[in-house]
Amino acid sequence: MDPYAGKTVETFVNYPTIFVIFGITGDLAGRKLLPALLALFSKKLLPNRFAIVGFSRRTFSREEFRDLIRGNMKIRPGQFKEEDVKHFLDHISYEQGNFDSVPAYSRLAETLRLIDERWGQCSNKLFHLSVPPNLYYGILSNLSSSKLTQPCDDHTGWTRVLIEKPFGNDITTARSIDKFLGKLFKEEQIFRIDHYLAKEALQNIVAFRFQNPIFEPIWQNTYIDRVHIKLMEKDGIEARGSSYELVGALKDMGQNHILQALALVAMNEPRSVKADDIRRERVKVLKALKPISKRDISQSVVRGQYSGYLTEPGVSAHSLTETYFRVKAFVNTSRWKGVPFYLESGKGLAESKTEIDIYFRGKSSAKSEGTGSAGNILTFRILPDEGIKIKFFVKTPGYGFKTEPRTLKFKYSDVPAFNSVPNDYERLIHDAFIGDQTLFASTEEIMASWEFVTSILNNWKDLPLNVYEKGAKEV
Amino acid sequence: MDPYAGKTVETFVNYPTIFVIFGITGDLAGRKLLPALLALFSKKLLPNRFAIVGFSRRTFSREEFRDLIRGNMKIRPGQFKEEDVKHFLDHISYEQGNFDSVPAYSRLAETLRLIDERWGQCSNKLFHLSVPPNLYYGILSNLSSSKLTQPCDDHTGWTRVLIEKPFGNDITTARSIDKFLGKLFKEEQIFRIDHYLAKEALQNIVAFRFQNPIFEPIWQNTYIDRVHIKLMEKDGIEARGSSYELVGALKDMGQNHILQALALVAMNEPRSVKADDIRRERVKVLKALKPISKRDISQSVVRGQYSGYLTEPGVSAHSLTETYFRVKAFVNTSRWKGVPFYLESGKGLAESKTEIDIYFRGKSSAKSEGTGSAGNILTFRILPDEGIKIKFFVKTPGYGFKTEPRTLKFKYSDVPAFNSVPNDYERLIHDAFIGDQTLFASTEEIMASWEFVTSILNNWKDLPLNVYEKGAKEV
Repeated sequence: MDPYAGKTVETFVNYPTIFVIFGITGDLAGRKLLPALLALFSKKLLPNRFAIVGFSRRTFSREEFRDLIRGNMKIRPGQFKEEDVKHFLDHISYEQGNFDSVPAYSRLAETLRLIDERWGQCSNKLFHLSVPPNLYYGILSNLSSSKLTQPCDDHTGWTRVLIEKPFGNDITTARSIDKFLGKLFKEEQIFRIDHYLAKEALQNIVAFRFQNPIFEPIWQNTYIDRVHIKLMEKDGIEARGSSYELVGALKDMGQNHILQALALVAMNEPRSVKADDIRRERVKVLKALKPISKRDISQSVVRGQYSGYLTEPGVSAHSLTETYFRVKAFVNTSRWKGVPFYLESGKGLAESKTEIDIYFRGKSSAKSEGTGSAGNILTFRILPDEGIKIKFFVKTPGYGFKTEPRTLKFKYSDVPAFNSVPNDYERLIHDAFIGDQTLFASTEEIMASWEFVTSILNNWKDLPLNVYEKGAKEV
Repeated sequence: MDPYAGKTVETFVNYPTIFVIFGITGDLAGRKLLPALLALFSKKLLPNRFAIVGFSRRTFSREEFRDLIRGNMKIRPGQFKEEDVKHFLDHISYEQGNFDSVPAYSRLAETLRLIDERWGQCSNKLFHLSVPPNLYYGILSNLSSSKLTQPCDDHTGWTRVLIEKPFGNDITTARSIDKFLGKLFKEEQIFRIDHYLAKEALQNIVAFRFQNPIFEPIWQNTYIDRVHIKLMEKDGIEARGSSYELVGALKDMGQNHILQALALVAMNEPRSVKADDIRRERVKVLKALKPISKRDISQSVVRGQYSGYLTEPGVSAHSLTETYFRVKAFVNTSRWKGVPFYLESGKGLAESKTEIDIYFRGKSSAKSEGTGSAGNILTFRILPDEGIKIKFFVKTPGYGFKTEPRTLKFKYSDVPAFNSVPNDYERLIHDAFIGDQTLFASTEEIMASWEFVTSILNNWKDLPLNVYEKGAKEV
């Protein structure tokens, strides 16, 4: 069950690659992207010949740029060997230019051509857009028209683009982005980052479900009563006021992370662990989500806003943006008929916790005496304390025959290898290098998620916005 | 699911009871029976009015008897309050007599009558035979003919007999004992002690299977590959040479403990947790055991004897008594068709361990790439470290999609109440007091076990006796 069988690390390590970062001096590049690249570099998981070319508006001297990048990465003392950091920074060069300036892209093309010339080989090119989404259109159009995203020929020098969420703001904008991307790139060139998919504990849902044959027979509505996916955060929106106002909890967490988790829990077994097969099964689930109708909305959806949100910086005093939602969703397949999936996320809650609870049906009291027991619960804990646990029932020690709940537990932190696990961005960049799209959202998945989320957005205007205290356990 | 619902402790605590022990000065009474009675007494779980009447051959003064009993019980300092011990001993009186002397039983009857007279009530009577099995016939005949085992009338003063294994030496002797017992007593009066059945961890198999609805659907041959029940002991036979020579491992451990464990693993869900319903399901399994034929014996059975056994005290120099066996058994029901139950027990092995492993089928490699995974294993650990664990597979942290085995664990010692759990004899005496036969073997169970074991005994004469080194891991 290893997709790397036959696809050795050498295959890409020996192939020269240029990683182009638009917005290299920004927050995302500094916090996530460059540290991930440095980690891969220090583990010798980058191609032997590789270069990073940064692109940004401001003008810097070579030294200023190097210092800025190094500062932005916030390397902790002892995290990397000083020698590795130095060599890594040597691989980065800088190209100043406005994102909407056509000549700037010609200069970028020339820079890349010179690197290829130096290497004596047409290299692969990866473009990452570490910029606000409103700049995507301009950058991608210019990339395309400058022919930078065209491979050298059919066999050498692939080109790929890595883009970040949000992938649209509703089904309409998502479709237009998709249409636009589809004109410029083939689907196998587009790597949409939903970093949740790359989380080890989330990937493990698939491994756990399909490599433990005792679970598959009971993974259906005969035995499962309900599923609860929750992504709770203790913090409020902090400094994100003005951008959060445009999004809200449902788009920020529901459309992507939570629906991806739902897809992993509910999907059928893929024919293989190849990206295409896994993504095909994920999208089937998302397409099977029953849209929430106007009639159902009041029983199916709760939205809330924490008390104090209106006075956060950047927030409108009359904002109706939700910081919390709970949706009762149904997957319209024979396997899941009648099983509610509770999807819940919010900020300013009692604790930070992301987990998926599978509630199995309790024993009916008909066959056994007394009251019958409650059901078993299987929990995938994503954050914190990644792990798996099963609530089950044992005999209460002593006389009689009562039972009481206990827990079978497994924690990832007990696995030594887990503590050196690649973080989500390391994993994603690595997979983009080797061209594995398993952990990236496909266009079909994005569209299906938006279809479902839009059915809620279209119908919840009349729903009350419950105001809850910060630190609330329930909304 | 509490059989005590409506059957309060008061029901029997308020009813006077006399506990008669034949062989009260012997090893079993001193080591097991009296300490269990003392424990129940100190927990106020004995009837308010109760008396213990010891019966034995030797003559003692009152003081000598009291000192002997106290010494035999080997009370650890601090185990009981001194006051409780003193009061407990005050409840014990002694009746000297030969087990085969008719007048002795008349004197015993007179003693019991006087106690009843003092209490002004016809009391319940429990007779326990702490004597070698060859004395059973005499004692039980005399008990019966002296009318000691007859209740005062239909409603008051029940009488019960507690007997210890072995319940026969093969199907023929077992049938004759059974026939004999059947003439003297009704089945509900007979409490056959298989102390393994009273072990908390063994009782929990039933609770675990039927109170956790996620297991019942996969508890069958479609999902279970094989079951392995093993009862391994590190020690050799120690001082038991002469008695062990008459028995051997298969009768010592197989006919009773291991087949009882098999019954609990393989039985269908009982209609209730009432003794009759549970015993009915246990016996169905035992009756469905496929006898081992002469043709199958060499592939189905292994027997062994540890090197050095022949020079143990009390052992014949040419003994063919087995100290180890392994049997591949099948339960002839639709649920278990084709699933081998490996039954294994021995002395002088690498470690002392009693556990039941349920091996679930592995994933066929057809549907997933690569090699497919091995199967899940559910383990009920009886001794030591009582608990439950499940071997399952998680994603190996990091790149790729390999899986590796991990364990979900639960240990009884994590449950505070477990450490004050009644030991097996406490539990059994308690249940005999309240008339609950769940943890006692029924005559039908004994017969069915012997039927199966006799099929092996009749056919294994020509089987080689493998000699193994003490401390061997495998035979």
